[in-house]
Amino acid sequence: MIRLDATSADFADRFADLVDARRESATDVAQGVATIIGRVRTEGEEALIELTRRLDRFDPVETGWAIDPADCEAAYNALEPGLRTALDLAASRIRAYHERQRPTDTDYRDEAGVRLGARWRPVDAAGLYVPGGRAAYPSSLLMNAIPARVAGVERLAMVTPTPDGQVNHLVLAAAHVAGITEIWRVGGAQAIAALAHGAGPIAPVDVVTGPGNAWVAEAKRQLYGVVGIDMVAGPSEIVVVADARNDPQWIAADLLSQAEHDTVTQSILFTDDAGFADAVTSAVEEQLGTLATGAVARTAWDANGAVIVVPSLAQAMPLVDRLAPEHLQLAVDEPQDLFDQVRHAGSVFLGRHTPEAIGDYVAGPNHVLPTGRRARFASGLSVLDFMKRTSFLGLDETALAELGPATVALAEAEGLPAHARSVALRLRLNR
Amino acid sequence: MIRLDATSADFADRFADLVDARRESATDVAQGVATIIGRVRTEGEEALIELTRRLDRFDPVETGWAIDPADCEAAYNALEPGLRTALDLAASRIRAYHERQRPTDTDYRDEAGVRLGARWRPVDAAGLYVPGGRAAYPSSLLMNAIPARVAGVERLAMVTPTPDGQVNHLVLAAAHVAGITEIWRVGGAQAIAALAHGAGPIAPVDVVTGPGNAWVAEAKRQLYGVVGIDMVAGPSEIVVVADARNDPQWIAADLLSQAEHDTVTQSILFTDDAGFADAVTSAVEEQLGTLATGAVARTAWDANGAVIVVPSLAQAMPLVDRLAPEHLQLAVDEPQDLFDQVRHAGSVFLGRHTPEAIGDYVAGPNHVLPTGRRARFASGLSVLDFMKRTSFLGLDETALAELGPATVALAEAEGLPAHARSVALRLRLNR
Repeated sequence: MIRLDATSADFADRFADLVDARRESATDVAQGVATIIGRVRTEGEEALIELTRRLDRFDPVETGWAIDPADCEAAYNALEPGLRTALDLAASRIRAYHERQRPTDTDYRDEAGVRLGARWRPVDAAGLYVPGGRAAYPSSLLMNAIPARVAGVERLAMVTPTPDGQVNHLVLAAAHVAGITEIWRVGGAQAIAALAHGAGPIAPVDVVTGPGNAWVAEAKRQLYGVVGIDMVAGPSEIVVVADARNDPQWIAADLLSQAEHDTVTQSILFTDDAGFADAVTSAVEEQLGTLATGAVARTAWDANGAVIVVPSLAQAMPLVDRLAPEHLQLAVDEPQDLFDQVRHAGSVFLGRHTPEAIGDYVAGPNHVLPTGRRARFASGLSVLDFMKRTSFLGLDETALAELGPATVALAEAEGLPAHARSVALRLRLNR
Repeated sequence: MIRLDATSADFADRFADLVDARRESATDVAQGVATIIGRVRTEGEEALIELTRRLDRFDPVETGWAIDPADCEAAYNALEPGLRTALDLAASRIRAYHERQRPTDTDYRDEAGVRLGARWRPVDAAGLYVPGGRAAYPSSLLMNAIPARVAGVERLAMVTPTPDGQVNHLVLAAAHVAGITEIWRVGGAQAIAALAHGAGPIAPVDVVTGPGNAWVAEAKRQLYGVVGIDMVAGPSEIVVVADARNDPQWIAADLLSQAEHDTVTQSILFTDDAGFADAVTSAVEEQLGTLATGAVARTAWDANGAVIVVPSLAQAMPLVDRLAPEHLQLAVDEPQDLFDQVRHAGSVFLGRHTPEAIGDYVAGPNHVLPTGRRARFASGLSVLDFMKRTSFLGLDETALAELGPATVALAEAEGLPAHARSVALRLRLNR
């Protein structure tokens, strides 16, 4: 953890170092991923079988590729009732929030008599990657599947690794809640390749989303253009802007809720009170000792944590914009003025009673958010990621007479005579 | 050109071949591009100077990197008046269409008392690539720059190669119309790298758009994630659905307006009348002989053109969806029924008097559209490509009491105790 004071002489340099620090793994799996994609494309199911036997240590020919939706329903019914209610609440609130994201079509006639507009349609099929093991979060499944459903996607194909043949019952229960009925026991780059190109029993899809390890992320990157993908995600991060009237324990827990995800995550506190900064730092140390995820959180906090004291919270906001954080908590009584200053952030959590964790699960907005300063140009996952827009126009003879001559002039200037001719013929011009 | 009949026994196979045919260059420039990006990143301006001297054969140290906006204004004033009017008309109509794409923010309170919403903001800076040489289209400059302006992007940085130091006056004039004042004489992968990472006088941007050759496209692909990019574009294509009541010469010109762009473009006609198919084929042959771009168009038409006779135009529409074409013309009197069937197309041109060329220049919708079947999942360039969405939420104590327990349950089930604690502390639960 570093501690910075915005009034110190070396602050500009040290803050710039913090902004530029790269926490993303430089592991180069590009060649290995390219090989897997090539194999799945040419060998199809044979490649999936061989890779799954070797990497996931079970035989998909014996188990079958598909997970039965009845198993998902059974997993849901077997959940502890409080957890079942929690999953249902999360799904229903996520659905309600995303329903407001459905785009509106346009269709109008302008003063030149031209009919113009744009029409949104869902993709035909979306593929959803769900990791196995420690990073298998049922909440992520809901965050990916529900926007696709709200978009109106007819076919949703889920892939998930089942190492040693073992399924994750919490993930199956979430699949049931999300209404997913097509689930394949395959993971890694080979699963992404199968979704993009089709292989064995898996028909190709149009968009692939969902978190995964470095191999999954690289496969999505390489197949971008063959299919649509969500933004490649890096390590998670949180910025908390807090005044001294917060309980230091609350803020410490907020910082640690990011740190416990992974050793490369980042938690940053901005405050206008040096004593409060000390109190939060102490509370972090105290809580680290009692946290089951303490070892991971300790490594992340020590390596990437930062506590920054600023003369006023308003002065923190341009610094926050440079970080363009995935998550931004504004822990003050009246957050609106600070919020109005924010240009770049994935998601903002307003006020003392809005810990980021609420947004991870049940609030409604998507928790798949741009990381690594990508909030400068990228947005969280939404219904729009599962839809596309077709523009259209229609002219009658009168409208063409009005717009035609300019088109002919521009086409000729660009050296495209057939373009000019397609208009000129209709205008009965000699060309 | 191939001719297919939808009622013939081998149609399914032959149409599948047409859908699967790859026209995208397999040129592997990935390693060369990676080297250039690495050099620009580490050597900065020195790399730009060396590459520009070698590849564009002029000395940017002598000429300076910047093109003076006064030169753009002079180029505009020197235009033939008809062309000046045409550029102004195009710009004003493109602006009007894109202004309707500005997204709406949301901010509401739901029944649980949670404040929820999403806020759109423009990116701080956008980089626009404008090719030199034959593919330097002023219309593309307008199609890329105007959506960025409408989005509210404050800084728009244009890069364009000036081989042998020569500028393209039509492009400079279009830059003036688009109000671009920051223009750099640099092209190729090195220009994209300079925009993404910053180099020499060029400050980094957040989004890079605009067409380019294979090196430019690969540089954008490799830098996706460092910056936002528009969809990687492949060869252009058009599908025309036409009944026998069209003038065959009009439809032939429409097919050729795509073919003249490049030898790898594709033009496909669907018609329900074999005699009309013959007539269009003859008209294409006839026009090819009189077209200044005839050699290019001939190669494209011979290699990739297709004429497909279907029993009825309605039966063509599922086939069109499988092609998911960049451009789709519905050349019939009443196109609405056919249009209602379309799921996948970049842009649709309705009726006999709406040749695709109108959409390339002055109609208003963007002509940067998804190619190579990407209309299955991608949309044309829009104002949204230059903006991003920040979600937000705010809870008070009452709302947290309502949503908190479900969050604690889910966080504990996912093995994330600090997440649970950040909520439990605020609820005064013992955890």
